Amino acid sequence: MQLVIGNHNYSSWSLRAWLLLRQFDLDFETVRISLFVPGFSQQIKQYNPAGKVPVLLDNGTTIWDSLAICEYISEQHLHNNGWPSNPALRAHARSSCAEMHSGFMAMRSELPMNCRRHVDNFVVSAEVQKDTDRICTLWNEALSQSGSGQFLYGDFGIADAFYAPIVFRLTGYGVKLPKPLQAYCDRILALPACQEWLKLAQQESEVIEEEEV
Amino acid sequence: MQLVIGNHNYSSWSLRAWLLLRQFDLDFETVRISLFVPGFSQQIKQYNPAGKVPVLLDNGTTIWDSLAICEYISEQHLHNNGWPSNPALRAHARSSCAEMHSGFMAMRSELPMNCRRHVDNFVVSAEVQKDTDRICTLWNEALSQSGSGQFLYGDFGIADAFYAPIVFRLTGYGVKLPKPLQAYCDRILALPACQEWLKLAQQESEVIEEEEV
Repeated sequence: MQLVIGNHNYSSWSLRAWLLLRQFDLDFETVRISLFVPGFSQQIKQYNPAGKVPVLLDNGTTIWDSLAICEYISEQHLHNNGWPSNPALRAHARSSCAEMHSGFMAMRSELPMNCRRHVDNFVVSAEVQKDTDRICTLWNEALSQSGSGQFLYGDFGIADAFYAPIVFRLTGYGVKLPKPLQAYCDRILALPACQEWLKLAQQESEVIEEEEV
Repeated sequence: MQLVIGNHNYSSWSLRAWLLLRQFDLDFETVRISLFVPGFSQQIKQYNPAGKVPVLLDNGTTIWDSLAICEYISEQHLHNNGWPSNPALRAHARSSCAEMHSGFMAMRSELPMNCRRHVDNFVVSAEVQKDTDRICTLWNEALSQSGSGQFLYGDFGIADAFYAPIVFRLTGYGVKLPKPLQAYCDRILALPACQEWLKLAQQESEVIEEEEV
């Protein structure tokens, strides 16, 4: 498999797919395309006419959206275990990820993922606070339903991969969280795969001005 | 099962879930909540703290997003047949729906679904034309891959339910389409379930000014 991604530092939706593949130790090659530099558009359109990352190429099949990639990986390579097996938890996890996929616009635009950026007391808008509160509710529901597991629904799964960019955002901008949720963020950040991603982001030199808020 | 929806006339994401359930002849009851009237917010939050429709209630499980509802229905009630069975087509269908779920912002904001509205020559912006062109590409790819079927991937499935609000938009605003794609729209509109939805929209009297572009 080949996974086409953008800059490690900025490309939050690339991180979702990459983390799932890495965390489940699947065999894949990363193709990194530098976002928004001259030629970017032509380069990405070789893989995805919609012009976005990430894109997964598997044996002649192209999957061009992070949520679709996660569903595909779960079905084709993880025996459906990307989601929790319990149908109610599975429905909760899918709802949480689909809500993230179509929403949380304030969080996504005002706190862009920027792995190299660390601030202690970034002042968030009321809209970002509303998104943060909603995310806390979802995480609390997930963690309280899933027993003693370390991750949102027990074992690591698609929902954790999907919310990892949020972990990077909240911790990077120093947003205060309740203790159990901060502990969850710490567990995500401590994953060797996340440490690897952060290191790769550090090594990148490109700066995208619009993402430097 | 209970499906909580908004106004038939305007609620495009309600239509996605409702059409899937109806078209597969599943047993469910509809709970209609009038969007954005006084008390709407409290009413919907009884079902979904995120404050959005549609919401599916099945045997104690709440699923609160249209894409998650479709995945849940496919797994729990359709033996996984909501998507095409061929893995490559399945990946294409999921990518197309996830792209719709997170994108096509110009189409969604400039051509809001309004089942009662019919105009012959609405002038679309360059951004809406770009969205339309992309949708045409996706539909052409789907229809050409899926053999002689009537629908996007052969038999009716989640992708058709997901793109039905787009069919309603494009035809309602009189956007010109290539013949085979107009024929696809006509087949969707001719479904008894779509005719039922349109009739229910006609019977509604509420007007949401912001959706009357």
